[in-house]
Amino acid sequence: MSRRARTLSTVGESALIERIARRTGLASTKRWRLGIGDDAAILKPKPGFDLVLSSDAQVEGVHFRWGRETPRVVGRRALAVNLSDLAAMGAAPTGCLLSLAAPGDFELDVFDGIVAGFVFESKRYACPLVGGNLTRADRCSLHVTVVGEVPRGAALLRGRLRAGDELFVTGVLGAAALARRKADEGGTALTRVPVPRVAAGQRLVRSKATSACIDLSDGLATDLAHLLEGSGCGAEVDLGRIPTPRGFERGCREVGLDPIEAMLTGGEDYELLFARRPPGGREPSPGWERALGVGVTHIGDVVSQAGISGLPALKACGHHF
Amino acid sequence: MSRRARTLSTVGESALIERIARRTGLASTKRWRLGIGDDAAILKPKPGFDLVLSSDAQVEGVHFRWGRETPRVVGRRALAVNLSDLAAMGAAPTGCLLSLAAPGDFELDVFDGIVAGFVFESKRYACPLVGGNLTRADRCSLHVTVVGEVPRGAALLRGRLRAGDELFVTGVLGAAALARRKADEGGTALTRVPVPRVAAGQRLVRSKATSACIDLSDGLATDLAHLLEGSGCGAEVDLGRIPTPRGFERGCREVGLDPIEAMLTGGEDYELLFARRPPGGREPSPGWERALGVGVTHIGDVVSQAGISGLPALKACGHHF
Repeated sequence: MSRRARTLSTVGESALIERIARRTGLASTKRWRLGIGDDAAILKPKPGFDLVLSSDAQVEGVHFRWGRETPRVVGRRALAVNLSDLAAMGAAPTGCLLSLAAPGDFELDVFDGIVAGFVFESKRYACPLVGGNLTRADRCSLHVTVVGEVPRGAALLRGRLRAGDELFVTGVLGAAALARRKADEGGTALTRVPVPRVAAGQRLVRSKATSACIDLSDGLATDLAHLLEGSGCGAEVDLGRIPTPRGFERGCREVGLDPIEAMLTGGEDYELLFARRPPGGREPSPGWERALGVGVTHIGDVVSQAGISGLPALKACGHHF
Repeated sequence: MSRRARTLSTVGESALIERIARRTGLASTKRWRLGIGDDAAILKPKPGFDLVLSSDAQVEGVHFRWGRETPRVVGRRALAVNLSDLAAMGAAPTGCLLSLAAPGDFELDVFDGIVAGFVFESKRYACPLVGGNLTRADRCSLHVTVVGEVPRGAALLRGRLRAGDELFVTGVLGAAALARRKADEGGTALTRVPVPRVAAGQRLVRSKATSACIDLSDGLATDLAHLLEGSGCGAEVDLGRIPTPRGFERGCREVGLDPIEAMLTGGEDYELLFARRPPGGREPSPGWERALGVGVTHIGDVVSQAGISGLPALKACGHHF
């Protein structure tokens, strides 16, 4: 064996699939009749539950750059952003497929790092990697499909909110934009992986008070507009209430980032934005917030007049067209 | 509006999703509680059925080239090769997700052509496009996930065959390799789209005689080895029986292609290769072949001794590593 780094081409597809399968473990589980290794994976659906399916991708040069991120972080993030979509529907993760593209001279160590990160995240959120695809391409990209389950008919959809609903976000906003900028400016590795609010989503789906939910991938300004779509309602947001990380303003100043812009349009925070019907007449029950397992902040309200007030006009960010 | 071709960047993501949704039609159907438009799609599973999931990709410069294929053919093939994986499990298509990557300056007309081809195929095989993702990338690629259903526990797996089983293929082999070479040599468009054997797969799954099945994506030589994996068995193939298209040898000669190589390792024929237990003692029932709705050919048999005999040693083709 030469001392030069081994590449995907020298190892070959079958051996690469083997490497993945060794990390994922069992080919069949209580829920999956069959995982990696055949033409397709086979799921035993759970009676009384709907299946929730979503896809999202991470592309080299667009979502990540090898100088800036480690392979492990790239692998972890590829699954985390998908799990966030399940969380936004209130679904519990059931499994995932990874369609991975990379050049033939891609280093095996980098491949292994990506897979290790992906499988780490998959075990953490009980979302087994059950299948997918490997293909050659000029640049690396990870296209992931996640499958989740939600009690029949209960998924948290957009647009179902009503005037009077209260708007909440989990966690803090702007952290992702700041971390990205710091990595770019400081030449250090971007180590931040978003935390998909999987448990919180499942608790929200069990509460009749939750009227709609979305995850914040593009930023509050854009995603709030999506949440309102089809409802005929608008929103009043209190800018001063939007939660940011400790030391956020100073951190932004140090790297020349506008904190308002970072927090509203920076995107990639993957927190949940949801609407909640306040309990009519009765006192609000403070317990529900604690039960979510993550801090939530009341940032505004749904109003009958269309449009969003309280937010400055800003250009959306994003990896889109 | 300028006369210059519109691009994905000028149209923007929301409008692009709208364009897709207009073509796919209904956001909800009898089976899908929700299609395109939210964080995820929602499927109502069918009692008594397993779900089958598979991913496959088509990458510019690897699986297709813009000079050689039309956008419509690229879109059609991206779904067809995935449906072939469902067919190989004996599953009926339920729906699909498309994760599409393309540059910002990608022409809108090409995008529309890809989507039109994809949706055409999706309607043809009753496999609605229910979700997915759009992202920027240097080059175009289509990563597809298909969902199918198969009666509980009945999916056609690999490796379950036994010595004495008979090996069959549907259709003819080598057609894809010949069409590809002709397009390359003649500078004409490659218009061939594989026909996924979706109906045949579903009929095979209903027959207790079917012991294993795989689709021929890489070529008979490679895929037969996959089919045998884990069974401890081998196969004896009769090279002379392998069915090829009419005028195949002459066609191969004209473009300098070795017919044996094209037929065995050309790949991309997407026919089914399956093993069938011959009816013990009784006469074979000729009816089963007709019921498949596609011609089948008995090309060899499963034997107890490992390895494949009857095929010349050839290097596998493929888009893999």
